[in-house]
Amino acid sequence: MKRFFYPESVVVIGVSRRPITVGRIILRNLVHCGYTGQVHAVGKNGGVALGRPIYTSLKDVPGPVDLAVVVTPAGTVPGIVRECGELGIQRIVVETAGFSELSDDLKGLEEELLAVSEAYGIRFIGPNCIGIINTENNLVTPFIQLRENLKGGKISIVSQSGGIAKTYWDHLFAEGLCFNKIMSVGNMLNVDEADLLDYLTNEDEGTETVCMYLEGFGSGRRFMEIARQSPKPIIVHKSATASAAIASAASHTTALSGDDKVVDAVFKQSGVVRAHSMVEMFDYAKIFEYPPMRGRNLAIVTRSGGHGVIAADIAEKCGFNLPALAPELIAKIRTELGGGVINLRNPLDLGDMYDVALLERITRLVLSSSKIDGAVLIHGYGIPQTKVTLNLVKNLKLCGQELEKPVAISMFVDSQEMAALKQQAELPLFDTPENAVKALDVSCRVHASREKRLKSTPFVKEMDNTAARRMVEKAISEKRNPAQHECFEILGMYGLRVPSFRRIQTTQEATQAAEELTAPMVLKIDVPSILHKSEVDGVVLNLHTPEAVASALDAMEERLADHIKPNGPFAAILMEQVDSEGLEVILGSRQDSTFGPTILFGLGGIFVELLDEVSLRVLPVDRNEIEEMIQETRGYPVLTGVRGLPSLDVEGLRDNLLSLAQLTQDFEQIREIDLNPVLVTQTGCFVLDARFLV
Amino acid sequence: MKRFFYPESVVVIGVSRRPITVGRIILRNLVHCGYTGQVHAVGKNGGVALGRPIYTSLKDVPGPVDLAVVVTPAGTVPGIVRECGELGIQRIVVETAGFSELSDDLKGLEEELLAVSEAYGIRFIGPNCIGIINTENNLVTPFIQLRENLKGGKISIVSQSGGIAKTYWDHLFAEGLCFNKIMSVGNMLNVDEADLLDYLTNEDEGTETVCMYLEGFGSGRRFMEIARQSPKPIIVHKSATASAAIASAASHTTALSGDDKVVDAVFKQSGVVRAHSMVEMFDYAKIFEYPPMRGRNLAIVTRSGGHGVIAADIAEKCGFNLPALAPELIAKIRTELGGGVINLRNPLDLGDMYDVALLERITRLVLSSSKIDGAVLIHGYGIPQTKVTLNLVKNLKLCGQELEKPVAISMFVDSQEMAALKQQAELPLFDTPENAVKALDVSCRVHASREKRLKSTPFVKEMDNTAARRMVEKAISEKRNPAQHECFEILGMYGLRVPSFRRIQTTQEATQAAEELTAPMVLKIDVPSILHKSEVDGVVLNLHTPEAVASALDAMEERLADHIKPNGPFAAILMEQVDSEGLEVILGSRQDSTFGPTILFGLGGIFVELLDEVSLRVLPVDRNEIEEMIQETRGYPVLTGVRGLPSLDVEGLRDNLLSLAQLTQDFEQIREIDLNPVLVTQTGCFVLDARFLV
Repeated sequence: MKRFFYPESVVVIGVSRRPITVGRIILRNLVHCGYTGQVHAVGKNGGVALGRPIYTSLKDVPGPVDLAVVVTPAGTVPGIVRECGELGIQRIVVETAGFSELSDDLKGLEEELLAVSEAYGIRFIGPNCIGIINTENNLVTPFIQLRENLKGGKISIVSQSGGIAKTYWDHLFAEGLCFNKIMSVGNMLNVDEADLLDYLTNEDEGTETVCMYLEGFGSGRRFMEIARQSPKPIIVHKSATASAAIASAASHTTALSGDDKVVDAVFKQSGVVRAHSMVEMFDYAKIFEYPPMRGRNLAIVTRSGGHGVIAADIAEKCGFNLPALAPELIAKIRTELGGGVINLRNPLDLGDMYDVALLERITRLVLSSSKIDGAVLIHGYGIPQTKVTLNLVKNLKLCGQELEKPVAISMFVDSQEMAALKQQAELPLFDTPENAVKALDVSCRVHASREKRLKSTPFVKEMDNTAARRMVEKAISEKRNPAQHECFEILGMYGLRVPSFRRIQTTQEATQAAEELTAPMVLKIDVPSILHKSEVDGVVLNLHTPEAVASALDAMEERLADHIKPNGPFAAILMEQVDSEGLEVILGSRQDSTFGPTILFGLGGIFVELLDEVSLRVLPVDRNEIEEMIQETRGYPVLTGVRGLPSLDVEGLRDNLLSLAQLTQDFEQIREIDLNPVLVTQTGCFVLDARFLV
Repeated sequence: MKRFFYPESVVVIGVSRRPITVGRIILRNLVHCGYTGQVHAVGKNGGVALGRPIYTSLKDVPGPVDLAVVVTPAGTVPGIVRECGELGIQRIVVETAGFSELSDDLKGLEEELLAVSEAYGIRFIGPNCIGIINTENNLVTPFIQLRENLKGGKISIVSQSGGIAKTYWDHLFAEGLCFNKIMSVGNMLNVDEADLLDYLTNEDEGTETVCMYLEGFGSGRRFMEIARQSPKPIIVHKSATASAAIASAASHTTALSGDDKVVDAVFKQSGVVRAHSMVEMFDYAKIFEYPPMRGRNLAIVTRSGGHGVIAADIAEKCGFNLPALAPELIAKIRTELGGGVINLRNPLDLGDMYDVALLERITRLVLSSSKIDGAVLIHGYGIPQTKVTLNLVKNLKLCGQELEKPVAISMFVDSQEMAALKQQAELPLFDTPENAVKALDVSCRVHASREKRLKSTPFVKEMDNTAARRMVEKAISEKRNPAQHECFEILGMYGLRVPSFRRIQTTQEATQAAEELTAPMVLKIDVPSILHKSEVDGVVLNLHTPEAVASALDAMEERLADHIKPNGPFAAILMEQVDSEGLEVILGSRQDSTFGPTILFGLGGIFVELLDEVSLRVLPVDRNEIEEMIQETRGYPVLTGVRGLPSLDVEGLRDNLLSLAQLTQDFEQIREIDLNPVLVTQTGCFVLDARFLV
């Protein structure tokens, strides 16, 4: 990837003689922003642009060329890429639009483009993008004219939308944050988000924080694996969560948008911060310029009581503690204040205190406390005090570095003063206390997630699954889903707890099975094509004697003749009925087309379905993650016993989930597993019904 | 209230000779901002300030004075107010801090202040505030030095925190919105939020939108009633929702903070928009400069696909429809575009279209569609086009006025261009499409709420409640809560459905009652002081015969002897047991200390309690509001029948809620009513247990 961003020479292909055309704007950006390498122009009508010749053919361009930027009409692109290949140009940014994002009919053109590039070993970014920027060498290929002088920073941006990339860079500039590299990736036909994330997190030295705007994923699984290992913070604004947005996103970038809950799980498991809006993205990016917050004890120091109240509100929502200030700390602050009429609590409201040096000393005292992991300073004034404030920020930066804790600074000043401060301050400033507190929460979460990931070892169960594999493959070869009894047998082999059962087809088998099992028993139809047994009246409960079982089986065969016939042969399962009281839950798994195997845990029963209380993880997982899955549904207290109810077999539930995880990873041929209900009682966790889709 | 904001002469009391002191800053603000009336200064050491004499005594100030602004130390304030009273000054702004917000010990000082002001018929704002501003006459009393030239607007601000008031005015200036009046109200000892809301919504002509920052309410009930009737939009940022924040708020303004759920209900019922952050406040304020959005059909017109996707995401979350564009509209747009390669859907992504006049014509076409109630236009560029854009905004403003629909404009340009546009544009501009869409949602909700409130007539049940009143008063006079049988009887009188029951104390009564009732029956202890019957084993279910009832009663009396004795006399209730399947719900009511009577509906059962599925209203309500209450809990589909379950008696539930509402309004002596569980079956809605606290 490095070759895209550090070329020694660039050719812009598609430069016209007319001034305000995309090719000309790119050329101008490269020249005026001070790109440090060679710049060449190619355009079919030739001429001169910015004092440079416009070559009519790529062949005429002198010397080796490292990077081509293409803005010619879509139909011409494959030919141009071929020409590049012949001339040994192996990195291309295709900014041209008019591919599959416009119409499915144009997929063929994309395939042609891919084929040509593969033939020549070419990597390309795009099509349908606005290009890339590297502030280290002033490589600027977007066709939007830039006003700013490029000022380098530590944040790099990957965006599936050109417009959003532009919004990000505008806002980062305004925040005084600046960026290192920007890459608008468009349709991600060849180079995708995973390639670039890999480069930025593992190779590119200038990048310290990665911000991404994604509507879908090109290589979801790889993205996740790279993110998991990343030593740098990654913030992703993933949109296209709504149905209308997905339709529009499909048109916009043609990438498939995964299920949003899976995306949440992926981000959580790999320590990616999810920004839910553009504004969140900027605020979260700011906090990584501060030292990380390593715990949840927050101090709020404020010059305005109201701002302190607002900060405390959001702090509580984020799960921060606001510890009381220690008596010796209060004594020291009191000495600093020299008396004064202030309530020394947390939030610490210093009111109309005009001595900035004193403000700094008090903030330092508070941050020094071993009880405090980080602080928010809320400061404001009327008439500008830019210089004094910049000095305060500088000192607080040093103080934070020394104590290895963040003091997020939120200012309330007028907008001109704020703009001036942001451009010059040595730390990013927050517009509101809410934003500062939320950003500190992100800092905490990223830090904790990294610690956790460093310690994590995925759960793997070593076992011989030959028999299970044979069963699954048999079902697949017969073009059917596994039958109930096969599902239960496979689950049993993997160590999931299933009540004792027998497969029966005849009255004789029924009687024998009933004699071997313990009453009460339940009889269930077992014809693979019947997916919803209760809907066809295919379940009979409370059978106590062999006779009852035999006659129930006969009645079932007769009753369901119409359902069975086309799908034959008739079979049923006789299973011991679990009558203990307990909690119904759902366990499931699914092969996600973007991220691979996933498992799901949810509270059962009709209410909880309506309330959508489920948790989800992408595999593999470790034991702790399974515990977290169980704990993060809001009904968790029922499992551990609440209001006089007994505690249930949470350990058995966890073991079942781990076994299901293993099974799901071992069989990617099984598209979906649905264990519903699973009954968690005081003494065990039983799978009462199972369905596999292959 | 008008006399506070339109005085013909003002005296600042507490002006020192030293330059940067609060009194001097206020004087300077009044003079330099161009206050149109007389300005006088009083300070104990006399001297001269800004060329004016500082009178050493209030008596020396010439001519009638309409408003006094006081910044002297807290202890001196009651005396100064008395002096004002003697001289006929009847409006005072007390900016001095150091009252109950600092320490409970200072409540006495507040009482003294109140007593003096009442004696002289004085109204005062504060104490502990930063004062008021009126841009119509340049009355500026805050002790924060202002940089801006005051530019008048239509928004007025009431803030319980001075710092937040300042933040609001800074931000509004930056947004180009400007304000009409600002009032920092501090401890609201005399003039409170309700007084000012009343003035701003009903009397003050310059104010078109009211923004409030509140941590608590001085007159919650009155606030609600004024808000309900308000013809002007009201946006409230209510903070102090977290426990730490509430502790801090109590110190900050000393107002009690109500339960946050009650606050939500109050706002919903009275059409108040709740802003959850400062940023939301500004965005919501903007949308009221646009025509109201009267329906939920939204069009998104964008120059960037990514921004369109983000807008569609948030539109779906807000509950907007994005109707497909009508074929004739598409035809017209196609004509305008003169061919071109654009997907004509909604969001309408116009991509790199540089013709602003065309953009305007297409936006107008889309907005003209009868299928569309409002639109978002997302526009952006690189190099500044301020003039062209201002013209576009102007024309879209006219277009919106003409069609009586809003086109919320979201710009993506660099921050300098954005700042310039905001200062000059004829409509407020949004920084992100998310903010624009959320603001349109607010516009819709405010419009719909106003329509609904205009039509609403509170439910009143005319009835003779003498017997009920006697029972409640008897319990109160005996210093106890009503007994179970009294609760059930009162509920019955109000028309709530209660299973048949008898109060029994002896074996003989037990036998007779059992003969009169239909089995199965349930026996419950009925001693008022025993609040949790099941905890003391005071409920016996499934009684079928008079003998069983009699012996259960005897056993209960013996078993609970220790619980009964101190509270005597022993009594129980025998009640017909409702065995039908159904849904357990909770009905309740409470006299809220801030807002008065409230009722509550919640889904029952342990899960739903954990998941906190309740809805709440402040009384009175109408039938529609009761319907909404029932519908807004997420388990509602269970009541109407879902997945093969039968539909339950929702009408009975609604009637019970209406009756409970009436009962709650009739008896403010009953602090709390708890009907739990109430069983909703297919054929009825039965109160199975009831508890009243007086």
